[in-house]
Amino acid sequence: MTYKAAKARVFDIISKDDGDDRASRIFDLLIMALIVLSVVSIVLESFDGLARQYAAAFRAFEYFSVAVFSVEYLARIWTADLLYPSAKYPRLKYLASFMALMDLLAILPFYLPFVSADMRYLRMVRLVRLFRLFRVFKLGRYVDALQTIVQVIRASASKLVISLLLCFFVMLFSAIIMYTAENPVQPEQFPNVVASLWWAICTLTTVGYGDVYPITAVGRFFAALISLVGIGIIAIPTGIIAAGFSSALNSSEEKQDSVKKYCPYCGKKIQ
Amino acid sequence: MTYKAAKARVFDIISKDDGDDRASRIFDLLIMALIVLSVVSIVLESFDGLARQYAAAFRAFEYFSVAVFSVEYLARIWTADLLYPSAKYPRLKYLASFMALMDLLAILPFYLPFVSADMRYLRMVRLVRLFRLFRVFKLGRYVDALQTIVQVIRASASKLVISLLLCFFVMLFSAIIMYTAENPVQPEQFPNVVASLWWAICTLTTVGYGDVYPITAVGRFFAALISLVGIGIIAIPTGIIAAGFSSALNSSEEKQDSVKKYCPYCGKKIQ
Amino acid sequence: MTYKAAKARVFDIISKDDGDDRASRIFDLLIMALIVLSVVSIVLESFDGLARQYAAAFRAFEYFSVAVFSVEYLARIWTADLLYPSAKYPRLKYLASFMALMDLLAILPFYLPFVSADMRYLRMVRLVRLFRLFRVFKLGRYVDALQTIVQVIRASASKLVISLLLCFFVMLFSAIIMYTAENPVQPEQFPNVVASLWWAICTLTTVGYGDVYPITAVGRFFAALISLVGIGIIAIPTGIIAAGFSSALNSSEEKQDSVKKYCPYCGKKIQ
Amino acid sequence: MTYKAAKARVFDIISKDDGDDRASRIFDLLIMALIVLSVVSIVLESFDGLARQYAAAFRAFEYFSVAVFSVEYLARIWTADLLYPSAKYPRLKYLASFMALMDLLAILPFYLPFVSADMRYLRMVRLVRLFRLFRVFKLGRYVDALQTIVQVIRASASKLVISLLLCFFVMLFSAIIMYTAENPVQPEQFPNVVASLWWAICTLTTVGYGDVYPITAVGRFFAALISLVGIGIIAIPTGIIAAGFSSALNSSEEKQDSVKKYCPYCGKKIQ
Repeated sequence: MTYKAAKARVFDIISKDDGDDRASRIFDLLIMALIVLSVVSIVLESFDGLARQYAAAFRAFEYFSVAVFSVEYLARIWTADLLYPSAKYPRLKYLASFMALMDLLAILPFYLPFVSADMRYLRMVRLVRLFRLFRVFKLGRYVDALQTIVQVIRASASKLVISLLLCFFVMLFSAIIMYTAENPVQPEQFPNVVASLWWAICTLTTVGYGDVYPITAVGRFFAALISLVGIGIIAIPTGIIAAGFSSALNSSEEKQDSVKKYCPYCGKKIQ
Repeated sequence: MTYKAAKARVFDIISKDDGDDRASRIFDLLIMALIVLSVVSIVLESFDGLARQYAAAFRAFEYFSVAVFSVEYLARIWTADLLYPSAKYPRLKYLASFMALMDLLAILPFYLPFVSADMRYLRMVRLVRLFRLFRVFKLGRYVDALQTIVQVIRASASKLVISLLLCFFVMLFSAIIMYTAENPVQPEQFPNVVASLWWAICTLTTVGYGDVYPITAVGRFFAALISLVGIGIIAIPTGIIAAGFSSALNSSEEKQDSVKKYCPYCGKKIQ
Repeated sequence: MTYKAAKARVFDIISKDDGDDRASRIFDLLIMALIVLSVVSIVLESFDGLARQYAAAFRAFEYFSVAVFSVEYLARIWTADLLYPSAKYPRLKYLASFMALMDLLAILPFYLPFVSADMRYLRMVRLVRLFRLFRVFKLGRYVDALQTIVQVIRASASKLVISLLLCFFVMLFSAIIMYTAENPVQPEQFPNVVASLWWAICTLTTVGYGDVYPITAVGRFFAALISLVGIGIIAIPTGIIAAGFSSALNSSEEKQDSVKKYCPYCGKKIQ
Repeated sequence: MTYKAAKARVFDIISKDDGDDRASRIFDLLIMALIVLSVVSIVLESFDGLARQYAAAFRAFEYFSVAVFSVEYLARIWTADLLYPSAKYPRLKYLASFMALMDLLAILPFYLPFVSADMRYLRMVRLVRLFRLFRVFKLGRYVDALQTIVQVIRASASKLVISLLLCFFVMLFSAIIMYTAENPVQPEQFPNVVASLWWAICTLTTVGYGDVYPITAVGRFFAALISLVGIGIIAIPTGIIAAGFSSALNSSEEKQDSVKKYCPYCGKKIQ
């Protein structure tokens, strides 16, 4: 096997599997399994007992997964010119892509000397690896459904952004009002506007933990008003998304209808 | 009455009543009453006083209902060849059906010797009997409405599954972030990621009991972000289901429209 | 003025005002004002200080409003034959109507001797008067909007009933599971299934007071599952109502469209 | 430059920028920055430490922003006849407009002598300045999306008002019932109907802080009923808004469709 053929074969293996390449499928499954196990290991390591008892196992798995991810990262850089055949600097283009940065973030910290000291930092690093799941997410049987959801959200993105801005505006407003009303009575619960914002978010999202709530008459009056407005505020993104799905459903039905041979109104044959 | 005629008669009685068979209707009502009473007895037995005072009555009812359900189960096995006339092994086919398994689960535990010892196990067993409610649910006058609901959910099943997966993904992500942020400050509330997941579910579903909540600045910032994302996450299944009902309503209206003889626009007769 | 003319005039006055009868409008406003003041007096009387200080005023208002409501009730019975001209026994028909029963419930308790003794009973009686608000609700400028809401809810009534039944089923199921899981650990929070039902309702409606919540691992697992199902359960009635409004909007737009003179498809003039 | 030309130039500058006037754009950005900084200063000043340490800076910013807003206000009065060229009294018309009143409210309190004494009053005054944000909100790239949201809400305004009235009605009803049931047992949590209304709002909006909740059997029964009704109550505005967006989406799609030259069914050219 020549250098060129080997490179093309490696590219085929690390590219998304199209269904008939067995090596590529096994590679995809291995990476996917490592990512999932990475998350599982974060969950398991959070149990004090397990972390101490199986420290060696966790470390071994860490070494192994970083090694595999590193090899994969290098292989992707190597074969970047096959991914972007028409680009001038294919390797730079790949290195600057979102996925490549995620890949780098997922392995880089391991090689920096000070990292291994701080467990918390390491955990964050592994979280980044979760983003890689998005890539393998594309496989599987629910591709169409996910695309519909993404399409609907993208189509109503500007409206959703505006409604979130509206939401933030109402929250800031509520937080300032509530700080003004409640701070003199319960300064520990509402020490400043930022702390008051925590209350506003808990209330407008209707989570309502109950750790912070107004006790003055004025505060309760405004809190009641804000809660009611909150229903409306939440109804807006829900409505936008519902309308988006409704429209997506209709247009997909219309597409199916377009194979009709006869006009539903006149009954004439459609040429 | 011959053996064959008797078997056909039994099959008629235990089959769903079509409106004019009185014995079948009485049988349906008896089974339904036993199921409802079974649930009522679980509720009543949970009251300490009642459980002790009427222990004999509860036990007698238990014996009676299991006896009836057992006879029904045997009768259904016996008449399985009338239910699946074209199947090769009608009895096996029936035994493997979802409803038959439910029926078996609802009576089997009673016959196992060690059961009577453990109250909690017995209660779980009775819970399984609740599944039988699904069968009689089909009766009643709201059949069409239930079918519409089931149809809508089935039609958008893949989208709902994807949005639930998205939901679970966000929850796991949130739980790991929150564990990292809050564990050092309140190790009793966030001892590990699984406990943190409890917080994530309470927050994203906007239930917000208030037994666990972040107190650090970083934790609150992420909790606020997660709550806001939660609105969107919940809006997605709501939107999907709303769009599904909207489409179901439209198509049922269109069906009614299709009996029209004249074009609604031109007024011409449709050939 | 003859007896017949006087009766007709009284009937005109107590009937719903059509816009040009001044006496009828004044009567409507008086009744409406009395009903609203009745509610306000319930609210004010709940303040301990006010109830004691203005006891005489509250009592005087009570006497006056009951007197007016009694006269109105008698007048409606008297003119019942004008309301139901074709009925055989118009007075009986009126007495048995929902509105007449509400009217009776609103004044009857005042005339019963034992009533004045129990404050709480009296309060309940005044609550009934709130139902009278429904009658005057018909007035006002938002008639069309209210009718649309009522129509939409009525059109999807069977589906809403089924989804509420589904909801109740899930609640009962959840309550029994949670009782089984939590009762041994926190018997005071989950003493029986009915108390457990309180938890189930608080959770599935996402209110989440936080007075009762699971603490065992099994309980939390099922609570998480139930919360997630709760999102779906709540999405169903929301979706049904949204679809109903969507359909109502479409059909009202179609009605407006029907004045079009030209077929939007063929461009032909519609005869 | 003549007086008239100077006036026209000033009017151009303070009017909304159309894209090619640089001075106007700078003015818009300055006002926007001052408004945003005004809000930021409210938030920062709420931190005790910062308020004391940077008291002079906060005061200087206050003086500067009020000065700018005052000059802007006077300039707008001066050029009112260019804004309303056909009005008889353009200045009065401007002074009575909503935006002018907001502008006045945002600066007036500063000039009243007694204001500087009371911190809390000052804070409220600055809150009013938030209303000015609405004006600059018009800028930005999301104009169309915001207009759609406003249109949808305006189109379903009467239905939303009715559903909010319904909501308030249910809340008052619930509050009176709950006061009647819970006051004798926990008089501190339910001292009067107004306090009980706080509970009703927290429950029906599903916020559920958990500071007030029923403990009697009757109270819990009604609370459960009210929570369930609450789902429906919240579903109504959500449904209305969702239907509104759905209709808005459809009509905007139809508009795009109306440029079609050929019947989508027959394929005939539309004359």
